Amino acid sequence: MRNICLLVSYDGADYYGFQSQPGGNTVQDKLEHAILTLTGERLKVHGSGRTDAGVHALGQVVHFLTGSSIPAERWALALNARLPDDIVVRAAVEVPPEFHSRRCAVRKTYKYAITSCRFPDVFERKYVFHHPAPLRFEAMKEGLVHLLGEHDFSSFTSPLSTKPHHVRTVYEATLNVEPGGDGSIADGRGKASLIISGNGFLYNMVRIIAGTLMQVGEGKRKPEDIARILAAKDRSKAGPTAVPHGLTLMSVEYGPEWGIDWRAAMNRKR
Amino acid sequence: MRNICLLVSYDGADYYGFQSQPGGNTVQDKLEHAILTLTGERLKVHGSGRTDAGVHALGQVVHFLTGSSIPAERWALALNARLPDDIVVRAAVEVPPEFHSRRCAVRKTYKYAITSCRFPDVFERKYVFHHPAPLRFEAMKEGLVHLLGEHDFSSFTSPLSTKPHHVRTVYEATLNVEPGGDGSIADGRGKASLIISGNGFLYNMVRIIAGTLMQVGEGKRKPEDIARILAAKDRSKAGPTAVPHGLTLMSVEYGPEWGIDWRAAMNRKR
Repeated sequence: MRNICLLVSYDGADYYGFQSQPGGNTVQDKLEHAILTLTGERLKVHGSGRTDAGVHALGQVVHFLTGSSIPAERWALALNARLPDDIVVRAAVEVPPEFHSRRCAVRKTYKYAITSCRFPDVFERKYVFHHPAPLRFEAMKEGLVHLLGEHDFSSFTSPLSTKPHHVRTVYEATLNVEPGGDGSIADGRGKASLIISGNGFLYNMVRIIAGTLMQVGEGKRKPEDIARILAAKDRSKAGPTAVPHGLTLMSVEYGPEWGIDWRAAMNRKR
Repeated sequence: MRNICLLVSYDGADYYGFQSQPGGNTVQDKLEHAILTLTGERLKVHGSGRTDAGVHALGQVVHFLTGSSIPAERWALALNARLPDDIVVRAAVEVPPEFHSRRCAVRKTYKYAITSCRFPDVFERKYVFHHPAPLRFEAMKEGLVHLLGEHDFSSFTSPLSTKPHHVRTVYEATLNVEPGGDGSIADGRGKASLIISGNGFLYNMVRIIAGTLMQVGEGKRKPEDIARILAAKDRSKAGPTAVPHGLTLMSVEYGPEWGIDWRAAMNRKR
């Protein structure tokens, strides 16, 4: 059996999340169905992690074991021809049999996109949360600093979490703000992208961080409240879970020992 | 009666174009319905021009005569609350009674967006035409130069055109190419935006230009063929009409005598 690893983008709007569910209509179901029609194999694909209903991915990573002899560089085109247009396989590589997309991941990066312009950009409305009131971007940036490093993120996960512990390390947490057409950044109007990278994320973690950070942006909480919320290890101290459509899984990284080079795979001539 | 002028964005995917049709479901119908529910007036709005089914707009301009006393700066928010989320009024201004969005327009700008990356960007798939083979971008840029200035554009309009003549002036015709993630621009892979500005456009003109220019990009025609096609004044000499979803009406400009300042209108505090 060969181990094939895919780099996958999807618009999550019309799916019940990544992971297979009894009702079907998940990204995993669509990928498995495309492989079935291509190779005749009824196999299971494994993602680097679930994404919830409505959450998008630019660079989800998926692997599966196959008996097919299709060369790695042919999989993307062959699967895209069998997938709906809101799921795109960007590249495929063959990886060692021990590789596992979830267990071997060393870093993941998410983006939560918010526009505080008076009116949403119609072309981005499905991927950006519209916060119609101005936001204090500088306070939000100050608040984010408290998330950096290793912490127990119990306050920022669903009480339904079944993980043995909630300690995770955040490597990067930044807010990039661009002018959005109406209003000015100085007045709290703009397109803001919360970028957060870490060694792992708990259920709803990025969306609860985004929901809490927007309260900092609204002046309802102070930047330093983020440190207090972390210390409390209590979900009820944090803000609401932000809506899913603003969230995108941007990338998943693996150690160099796996030899995964997406750029080379995408640029390879076929 | 007051004359109100709107700056409107829309995602054209789900509409039968801008202009009202017996079957309904046009952008004009949605705007008129929103005004009806706001003011009780059953009035007619006039756009700067039609856009075809599936064509988008970032900055369509629309005007209408109303008996309502709603201040100009209140219209956008009030109409957006009554419009579907794929139509957004970005700003409103009051204009002199003689102003007409179509007759007074002095310059329009369109974008035709093409990706020649192997796989489409899933988040832009509804606004960008996917040309899966590489394109000769430099040849396309050379071809565009022949369109600049005043010409009879009969070769680049539908034979169904009812216009008295087909002479139009193109002020700008450029192709901007950015890397698109897979492949390199040097290999003909990228995200290309054809930007074309002129004093007026004939039915299907930008889409026929885009369709012909892609043939130049494919090497099926030479850049200088564009000049020969223009000279022939014969639709059958040009290439196919490119699909509508790659086309966006970017902006419509008016002389300074009308005092329309969208930026000031968008930034006005409410």
